[in-house]
Amino acid sequence: MATAPTDRTRVRRVPHRGAYERETIEAILDETLISHVGFVHDGQPVVIPTLHARLGDRLYLHGSAASRMLRTLQKGVPVCVTATLVDGLVLARSAFHHSVNYRSVVVFGTATLLEPGEETVKVLELFTERLVPGRWADVRPPNRQELKGTKVLSLPLDEASAKVRTGPPIDDDEDYDLPVWAGVLPLATQVAEAQPDPRLDPAIETPGYVARWRP
Amino acid sequence: MATAPTDRTRVRRVPHRGAYERETIEAILDETLISHVGFVHDGQPVVIPTLHARLGDRLYLHGSAASRMLRTLQKGVPVCVTATLVDGLVLARSAFHHSVNYRSVVVFGTATLLEPGEETVKVLELFTERLVPGRWADVRPPNRQELKGTKVLSLPLDEASAKVRTGPPIDDDEDYDLPVWAGVLPLATQVAEAQPDPRLDPAIETPGYVARWRP
Repeated sequence: MATAPTDRTRVRRVPHRGAYERETIEAILDETLISHVGFVHDGQPVVIPTLHARLGDRLYLHGSAASRMLRTLQKGVPVCVTATLVDGLVLARSAFHHSVNYRSVVVFGTATLLEPGEETVKVLELFTERLVPGRWADVRPPNRQELKGTKVLSLPLDEASAKVRTGPPIDDDEDYDLPVWAGVLPLATQVAEAQPDPRLDPAIETPGYVARWRP
Repeated sequence: MATAPTDRTRVRRVPHRGAYERETIEAILDETLISHVGFVHDGQPVVIPTLHARLGDRLYLHGSAASRMLRTLQKGVPVCVTATLVDGLVLARSAFHHSVNYRSVVVFGTATLLEPGEETVKVLELFTERLVPGRWADVRPPNRQELKGTKVLSLPLDEASAKVRTGPPIDDDEDYDLPVWAGVLPLATQVAEAQPDPRLDPAIETPGYVARWRP
């Protein structure tokens, strides 16, 4: 399914890199660990890194009930959420054509505060499970006081677009003969060995979902 | 050197995570590959991922002269540039205290267009060299037409702040007795083997600065 680009989501610079298929957009949102949320506060743009989670055609943000960002967003002001994966450095024969392989999603919309209740807990489970599948069943679930101190907001993915660059450098025709190495340095997120909490009871073994965790 | 926090840069949520020392701010900006630039366009916040480079107490952005972002920023409108490193997933005994180890910088200000000239080339060299040290000397430098098609903007680091979380999870006292694994999954950027351009002359060897490249 493709979402028709709106005037706001149409990719203008290098339009062939624009992608509007819902599957592409969802895959990027699901793979990025964090996103950057933009909103306007007293006329000033503010960009804050935050965790996100996606379920169906909605994007969820959460945090402390005291968060200035969430208190601003719940007023229904315009918001922009951008999630970016850097897949590689692209080394061309000319300085000018150096580039980055990346996949990004930009979502425009307004956020809505979830009424506290069953759905909130389900979304908090989603935040945990999408980052560390298998974790939720192990941990102490949120109590009433913690739920009271937590806000969950959602925004629809109606106005979302992706931008993707892949592949080798594209050089000017006359530069291909230059004696210069060209190619891609592929980048990805890597996990190192899990570090147990210094206060962890040594009798507690590392669960498989931690030992086998991959980005 | 520390920059006194302004009303805009003071970290409000979890204030002990705020850092205002110039060295901390510069180190995070220098280590992040990309940043997210926020500006207001027709009342709508827009957040765009972009490369950045730092020299002294200025942050540089660059791109096509046709870029809507750069054309907007050069008008001197308020901008927010945020750069974030995700260092680990923090698994607490309670769902509520799960967190992320991260280092982020938020810069507020207004950008200024660099007059085309010698300084522009120096900054473009910086963009290349900070990502791939040793690369600039190898490549075809920008020609007059490419320089004409490129814009470089800078903004001062006067209003910048960092926010940093490190270390193990912090659980509620009564949760430390729960039989739940807790700790950190450390994350970092990893490089895979360089992929030569399919059109690369096989006689051209991989340079050391590519083979030994590390994030």
